[in-house]
Amino acid sequence: MFRPQIKVLDCTVRDGGLINKWQFSDDFVRKVFLALSKAGVDYMEIGYKSSEKYFSRQENGAWKFCAEEDLRKIVGDDDRSLKLSAMADVGRIDHDDIPHKRDSVLDMIRVACYVKEVDKAISLAHDCIDKGYETTINLMAVSKVLERDLDEALDDLSKSDIPAVYIVDSFGAMYSEQIHSLAKKYFEALPGKDLGIHTHNNQQLAFANTIEAIIAGVNRIDATLYGMGRGAGNCPLELLLAFLKNPKFDIRPVFEVIQDTLIPLKAEVEWGYHIPYMITGILNEHPRSGMKAMAAEEMPDLRQFYESLRDESELD
Amino acid sequence: MFRPQIKVLDCTVRDGGLINKWQFSDDFVRKVFLALSKAGVDYMEIGYKSSEKYFSRQENGAWKFCAEEDLRKIVGDDDRSLKLSAMADVGRIDHDDIPHKRDSVLDMIRVACYVKEVDKAISLAHDCIDKGYETTINLMAVSKVLERDLDEALDDLSKSDIPAVYIVDSFGAMYSEQIHSLAKKYFEALPGKDLGIHTHNNQQLAFANTIEAIIAGVNRIDATLYGMGRGAGNCPLELLLAFLKNPKFDIRPVFEVIQDTLIPLKAEVEWGYHIPYMITGILNEHPRSGMKAMAAEEMPDLRQFYESLRDESELD
Repeated sequence: MFRPQIKVLDCTVRDGGLINKWQFSDDFVRKVFLALSKAGVDYMEIGYKSSEKYFSRQENGAWKFCAEEDLRKIVGDDDRSLKLSAMADVGRIDHDDIPHKRDSVLDMIRVACYVKEVDKAISLAHDCIDKGYETTINLMAVSKVLERDLDEALDDLSKSDIPAVYIVDSFGAMYSEQIHSLAKKYFEALPGKDLGIHTHNNQQLAFANTIEAIIAGVNRIDATLYGMGRGAGNCPLELLLAFLKNPKFDIRPVFEVIQDTLIPLKAEVEWGYHIPYMITGILNEHPRSGMKAMAAEEMPDLRQFYESLRDESELD
Repeated sequence: MFRPQIKVLDCTVRDGGLINKWQFSDDFVRKVFLALSKAGVDYMEIGYKSSEKYFSRQENGAWKFCAEEDLRKIVGDDDRSLKLSAMADVGRIDHDDIPHKRDSVLDMIRVACYVKEVDKAISLAHDCIDKGYETTINLMAVSKVLERDLDEALDDLSKSDIPAVYIVDSFGAMYSEQIHSLAKKYFEALPGKDLGIHTHNNQQLAFANTIEAIIAGVNRIDATLYGMGRGAGNCPLELLLAFLKNPKFDIRPVFEVIQDTLIPLKAEVEWGYHIPYMITGILNEHPRSGMKAMAAEEMPDLRQFYESLRDESELD
């Protein structure tokens, strides 16, 4: 698949930080930054832009906040083709926590929200546009949203200035048919806007669903090194780059950083396919109960875990 | 997806045995048999039917041979809805090594071959049909076969009495578009025959490609418990059963046997997604160099591993 419009965003540090509260060493983040630069990746999402009014620095590492001085330690003053992104969760940051673009090394702010918060997200995203950033909106957890609520949110987005909206499979619950049907819905509701895709790997479908989104015309693609991400993780960047035939990408620095930093990290920090995450995925549930099961000293009885979550799920 | 014609075959012991030379305890095989029976799976492929003239019992466990007395230790004389299958590799067994169906607890013999051996495979499969077995042909490694050779093999198969032919992604190299295009080709070339699908997980696409084959009309589906299989493994049975909505399946015994036997086994025997297997997959190569890399005391330099395999691959 070669389509020059496709832009790849690596969110290893941002999504992976959900596992370890963004306690990455500067050395790790710098290695990721250099590898992505050499690989020709378009964007690195280096963390969340969150307010220190709401989150403590004692509990969370630097990449929960993406303060300018921390960002500059990583990217230096070198010319770079790799653009920098941060994610802003609605309700976890105030407008005045986001500096003007001229005072920041960030190129893009991606605003994440649930469907019911879309109007707050549009307001925050418009503020980011006004400050000079590239801006997108990531509509989370749409696999659990009623169709009429989703339609209303898409209608609001269609009237906004936001240039790009993401399909997000927060629970790793979607199959290819849902990806195609959501892409069709989003494209029809959002004429003139770009679409993005962000998947989770609970059912080993993160990469596959990303491919299907690309086939459906989605051009903004999220991935992470070695699939690192909360719970079952994300679409692995190495698989994505091997699939995309664009000669601007070089997969070899990705193998280097995986061997040098991700494989050692995976021995300490758990992500990937495990039955508790698979069960939350097939039941279209938040992975939190799966994470609790994985963190327990002893794995719970998996049949009982499935049965009780299935019964709760039916009562939703 | 609910289509009553879909038949699921679990080949955990047969394909998983490629990792440990079929050195499974009777207790393990019996637990798999009981779990698959309770789950409503259609077939269990319990091993290879191979000739003791060609392979030694000292090196290989019982499920390399599937002798009647070993099979009967597992299945007993109980009535069973779970049918038993064994795979026969062309050139590794002679016609007279296969007993008549009336003397065997096996229900099905699947003949596996490379495209160039298809006529030998048809001859062996016709012998199995004459002896009273359900019989299929699994055309291996088609991702490396020239189109005209594949067309000729399909033409030969179309004139045979073999009722079912499998699309096999031996190297885990295929994307969804290739699955759809091969399914179309096989259906057109083999009117009146059933198709099957057998995938490998080198690119985390085993389950996804199985779904695409099902969407394309393929009805005979291979999977293994927890994805166990050589190298990167296979399509995980638990994911497949959760996708298929047929009420005859019960996923709960599958969770039990995974927790009880597969998760402990995976701590001893390696399979699943690893970069060396990913690299053989993206380069459409046999996993043997990946297995060698994984078995080495120290993982080789992954960038160099990729570069040298890519260069060899281009010289093919």
